[in-house]
Amino acid sequence: MGLAEDVRAGDRLALARLLSWLEEGDPRGEGVLTELYPQTGLGHRVGVTGPPGSGKSTLVNQAVRWCRQHGSERVAVVAVDPSSPFSGGAILGDRIRMRDLSGDPGVFIRSMASRGELGGLARRTAVFVEALIAGGYERIFIETVGAGQAEVDIARMADTTVVVEAPGMGDEIQAIKAGILEIADILVVNKADLPGAQAAVQALHYSLGLAKRPAGAWSPPILTTIAETGEGVEALMEAVNRHQDYLLSSGEGESRELARASSRLEAELRHTLTETFQRTLADGRFEAAVQAVFERRMTPAQAAADLIGERAEA
Amino acid sequence: MGLAEDVRAGDRLALARLLSWLEEGDPRGEGVLTELYPQTGLGHRVGVTGPPGSGKSTLVNQAVRWCRQHGSERVAVVAVDPSSPFSGGAILGDRIRMRDLSGDPGVFIRSMASRGELGGLARRTAVFVEALIAGGYERIFIETVGAGQAEVDIARMADTTVVVEAPGMGDEIQAIKAGILEIADILVVNKADLPGAQAAVQALHYSLGLAKRPAGAWSPPILTTIAETGEGVEALMEAVNRHQDYLLSSGEGESRELARASSRLEAELRHTLTETFQRTLADGRFEAAVQAVFERRMTPAQAAADLIGERAEA
Repeated sequence: MGLAEDVRAGDRLALARLLSWLEEGDPRGEGVLTELYPQTGLGHRVGVTGPPGSGKSTLVNQAVRWCRQHGSERVAVVAVDPSSPFSGGAILGDRIRMRDLSGDPGVFIRSMASRGELGGLARRTAVFVEALIAGGYERIFIETVGAGQAEVDIARMADTTVVVEAPGMGDEIQAIKAGILEIADILVVNKADLPGAQAAVQALHYSLGLAKRPAGAWSPPILTTIAETGEGVEALMEAVNRHQDYLLSSGEGESRELARASSRLEAELRHTLTETFQRTLADGRFEAAVQAVFERRMTPAQAAADLIGERAEA
Repeated sequence: MGLAEDVRAGDRLALARLLSWLEEGDPRGEGVLTELYPQTGLGHRVGVTGPPGSGKSTLVNQAVRWCRQHGSERVAVVAVDPSSPFSGGAILGDRIRMRDLSGDPGVFIRSMASRGELGGLARRTAVFVEALIAGGYERIFIETVGAGQAEVDIARMADTTVVVEAPGMGDEIQAIKAGILEIADILVVNKADLPGAQAAVQALHYSLGLAKRPAGAWSPPILTTIAETGEGVEALMEAVNRHQDYLLSSGEGESRELARASSRLEAELRHTLTETFQRTLADGRFEAAVQAVFERRMTPAQAAADLIGERAEA
C-alpha cells in the first residue's frame, strides 16, 4: 500500500504508475486515488487554450518556469491534443517541451491524445488532473488546442482559463463568433512583436465589451506577451494569481468546484454504466444489433432500447 | 399517423416538427423515424470542415446551389457550431445563409449549437441527419468549424469529408499537426486569389505525401476555389461525385456505413442508459453524491459506483 505515500512524497515513478493504472482502468489506480483523495490540497487548475500557431506551448513553458522560480514546489502540465486521434501529434509537442523543461524534478509533463472515443478524452484528462492535485501538485496547466467542444469542456475543468490569440489569426467577426472568449478569465495576445498585435488587442476589447457581465464580477484583463523572450510572462502570472485570489474571496471558486463535481459525477456515471452494460452483453449480441441498424431494420435508438430491454428481462 | 408521409412528401413544416420532437426527446419523434427508417434512401453525407475564416459557409452555399442546378431535388445543410455553447453563434451564421438560399423550397438548413453536454452534440447531429435522409434528402452537407475532437467525430459521420483551408491560416507544421487532414477525402484551398494560395497547396501536398495509404485507396485531390465568385465549385462537386462513386464501387461506402452503425448504436446506448438511470434515482440522491465529491469524501468514480450499486440492490 506504499504507492499513495510515494506519490505524495513526490516520487515521479510512482505517479507515472498511478496514471498508467488510471488510464488502463486498472482497479488499483482507483484504489490509490481513493487513498489520496481526502487529503487533496487546493491545487490550482489553469486552462490554456487558443488556436494552433498562437504559441501556447512556449507560453506555458515560460509560465511553468516562472512558477518554479516563484515558490511552487510542484508544477504539472497536461497537454491535450484532441485534433490528433490517429497520429502521434501529442508526442511531437512533448519532445519540444522536454528539451525546455526536462531535468527539473519539480515539473511533471503529460500529453494526452484522443483515442477516438467521444467524451472519453475529457474524462481521462479530468481523472489525471485529480490524481496530480491529490499527489501534491500545486498548479496544473491544462493546455488544449483550438476552440471546439472538447476544448470548451476541458476549459470548464479549469479554475482559471487563459485564452491565447496571436496577431493575424482571424478578424473581428471570428473573435466574436468563437464562443471560447466567453469562458476566458484572462486574454493574451501572444507574439506581440508581430504587426497587427494592437489591432488584435482592440478586437478583443470590442468582443469583450459585447459580453454582459454582472456587476462585481471578474473583468478579464487583456494582456500582451512575447513567449519566445518571456516578455509579459510576469504580468500574466500576476493576473493568474489575482484571479485565483478572486475565486477564493468571491466564493466563485467554490461554485466552480461544485459544478465540476457534478459534471465529473455525470461523466463517471455515463462511463461506468456503459462499460458495465457492454461487459454483460452476450457474445455477438452487440454485433447483431449493429447489423440490424446497418440493414435499416431498426433505428439506432430502437436497437439500443432492444438491447437494454433484453438485459432488463434477463 | 400522417407525419411520416408528410415528411417524405417534402413537407418542410412536418420535417421541422419531426426534428423538434427528436431534439426534445419526444417519443413521437422516434416513432416517426422508425416508420421512415426502413425506406431510407442512399443519402450522401458530405462533411465540410476547416478553421474559422476559411470561407466554409460560402463554399457550402455555392455547393448547395450547384446541386440544385444539377438535378438534386432536396439538399440540406446541417451547420454545427461546437464552439459556441453559451451564445447564439450558430444563429449568426444562419442569418447570413438565409439571405443566400432561403426561398428555395428544395433546400433545408438547420443550425445546431452545443448545449454544453459532452458528446451530445455529435449524437443530436447524427439523429438529425438520419431524419433528413429518411425524409428523402439526397445530399446533406454537414458543416463544422475547427479541428477539435467534436469535429473529427462529426466528420466520421460523413461519407465524404471535405477539409477547407485558406492561405495564411498557418504554416506547414500546423497543417501536418492537425490530424483532421487524415480524415480528408478532398482538400480545398479556398480564397485562392489571395497571396500564399500556391504555398498552401504545396504545404498540403507535402503533408499528404507523409501519410501512408494502401495501394488502390482513394487519393485525396487538392483543389482551389474562390467561393465568393463560385470559381472552382464545379470541379469540387465533380470530385465529390467521384468520391461517392468510389465509395460504391470499392465497397468502402459499406464499411463506413457499418462503422457508423456501430458508433451510433454505442452513442444511443450511452445516452439511453444514462437518461434511464438518472430518471430512476431517488430525489436528492444525485445532489448528495455531488456533495460527497465536492467535500472530497469520495472520488467521482467511487460516488458513481455507489449510486449504481444502490440502484442494483433496490
